[in-house]
Amino acid sequence: MKKLINTPDHLLHDALAGLAAAHGDILTVRFNPDLVVRNDAPVANKVALIAGGGAGHEPLHTGFVGRGMLDAACPGAIFTAPVPDQIFAATKSVHSGQGVLYLVKNYTGDTLNFEFAAEMAELADIEVATVLIHDDVAVQDSLYTAGRRGVGLTLLLEKIVGAAAEAGADLATCQQLAAQISAHGRSMGMALTSCTVPHHGKPTFELPADEFELGIGIHGEPGRQRAKMASAAAIAEQLALPIIADLPFQAGDEVLALVNGMGATPLIELYVMYNELRQILNGHGITITRRLVGNYITALDMAGCSFTLLKLDPQLTTLWDAPVCTPALRWGV
Amino acid sequence: MKKLINTPDHLLHDALAGLAAAHGDILTVRFNPDLVVRNDAPVANKVALIAGGGAGHEPLHTGFVGRGMLDAACPGAIFTAPVPDQIFAATKSVHSGQGVLYLVKNYTGDTLNFEFAAEMAELADIEVATVLIHDDVAVQDSLYTAGRRGVGLTLLLEKIVGAAAEAGADLATCQQLAAQISAHGRSMGMALTSCTVPHHGKPTFELPADEFELGIGIHGEPGRQRAKMASAAAIAEQLALPIIADLPFQAGDEVLALVNGMGATPLIELYVMYNELRQILNGHGITITRRLVGNYITALDMAGCSFTLLKLDPQLTTLWDAPVCTPALRWGV
Repeated sequence: MKKLINTPDHLLHDALAGLAAAHGDILTVRFNPDLVVRNDAPVANKVALIAGGGAGHEPLHTGFVGRGMLDAACPGAIFTAPVPDQIFAATKSVHSGQGVLYLVKNYTGDTLNFEFAAEMAELADIEVATVLIHDDVAVQDSLYTAGRRGVGLTLLLEKIVGAAAEAGADLATCQQLAAQISAHGRSMGMALTSCTVPHHGKPTFELPADEFELGIGIHGEPGRQRAKMASAAAIAEQLALPIIADLPFQAGDEVLALVNGMGATPLIELYVMYNELRQILNGHGITITRRLVGNYITALDMAGCSFTLLKLDPQLTTLWDAPVCTPALRWGV
Repeated sequence: MKKLINTPDHLLHDALAGLAAAHGDILTVRFNPDLVVRNDAPVANKVALIAGGGAGHEPLHTGFVGRGMLDAACPGAIFTAPVPDQIFAATKSVHSGQGVLYLVKNYTGDTLNFEFAAEMAELADIEVATVLIHDDVAVQDSLYTAGRRGVGLTLLLEKIVGAAAEAGADLATCQQLAAQISAHGRSMGMALTSCTVPHHGKPTFELPADEFELGIGIHGEPGRQRAKMASAAAIAEQLALPIIADLPFQAGDEVLALVNGMGATPLIELYVMYNELRQILNGHGITITRRLVGNYITALDMAGCSFTLLKLDPQLTTLWDAPVCTPALRWGV
């Protein structure tokens, strides 16, 4: 295992210290429990948005803290859910009396711990609502999940609901919007290589030189099947068609497309995949009106990519376009 | 070799088609010769900035075309200089009568072909000036270069001179500013793994599981030495100290720091490296007042990183902060 780290034990805190030093104009990092919090939190008269999950998926979620997106992120250890105390500490830090919305990717540890935190918040008279994200069409259950996994849609949901909260939407409205996004977004991913969890020191799985894993999760958990290596066009079809069929997306739909790298995939390949996705959607009469291409929801050093499609309407589009100022997503400011 | 591509022959055009489709609001792609051009070029009363070089370093340069940065980028084949006709075509497309500045990384093929293009432009009565970038302190000459290689500073120079041109600086002023940046910036890189050039189909070099290459170039050309794998802190020292000693950077200096990934390095590791760099600089009394952390000047799927430091003054800082709107760098708009 060759990684640019000091020790596996220090990886998360070293990276958070780097994040804090690089983006002190946007966010503050607190340690033990580890929290990344908007500098201006609690923001008066605003619903507070909190997300969290295991580290190793950067920039998710810590890189999405800032104006127009998250109020706080709770990073757990690598691929490990944040603990309830940590989520509750974040809740106390950012709530301004307008309620707090938890945006939770559907993994067993995350959903349980966010539930515990919500109970703690209730005892402290802080109003909390939760939205579950489960956009991965690849598998029904997995190593980490009962039901579908939450993957690429997370970032789109954080951005769009973040914009609504920033504009003054109340807790019920934010929750409803998040549920709408959750209902209209679908994802699927693939891996060319395994990731290597630093504490384990070796790849989570082995992939032969001529195969890829279709429907992979963001922790290296298995997907639908091993498939023989194929062209970008053929792989794009194997990702896009199940997504289209699942919602289903239909001719005339306008969508936001995320072509996401798994951490070790260079941008030149992601643009090739975006080009293939666009052509497949064109063939189905579906138009990409907004898009994002890059490494946003990663699995440490895994090579591969995922597609996420979100059906847009004018309101979602306007909220997507609204200003955002975070380390990893920034426009309009 | 597992890559998300169709065929090596189609890689560049497929990626450019993806770039064009994703960022049609900012830029236009033309094929044969391949050019990426600002949508609003030629911009009246503005010096035009052109950069180019082999593909495989994305987002450099094609991702830096847009308002506040480049007017055009000329991507060559993978790791291959753009040809003179291509550079001349870009020149004709973007010049508005205020002159054209070529920003050229010091590689033999690039410098020669930009020289030829400048001669063609002269015959066409288009005023052209050229600035050579040679910021890599690792080696004096290399496989691709007489003199030092041009690496990470390129992006800082494109951004800062781009802002000056946007603000109406004339050709001589832009050239002088670029020379100032070139004189005050230094870089060095390292690799954990080789890259794989698609046409070759196998890694450019082999690195044992317990070694890294110090002073690597952005094409996989050799660096200073093979070194035993070490902690992030130790590797950061081996990159930072030669940079500091070379200019030299001194106590009291304010710098812009770029911690750049080589394409396959996840963000979590780059923030660890940023944290180490910051501490080393603090120890030397040098303050980072601006920074950028991410995969910006890559070597296909190489894992590794580079540091670039640029000594700032108030004018450079203001120009760095000025609005920029490109696919890969965007703020203030």
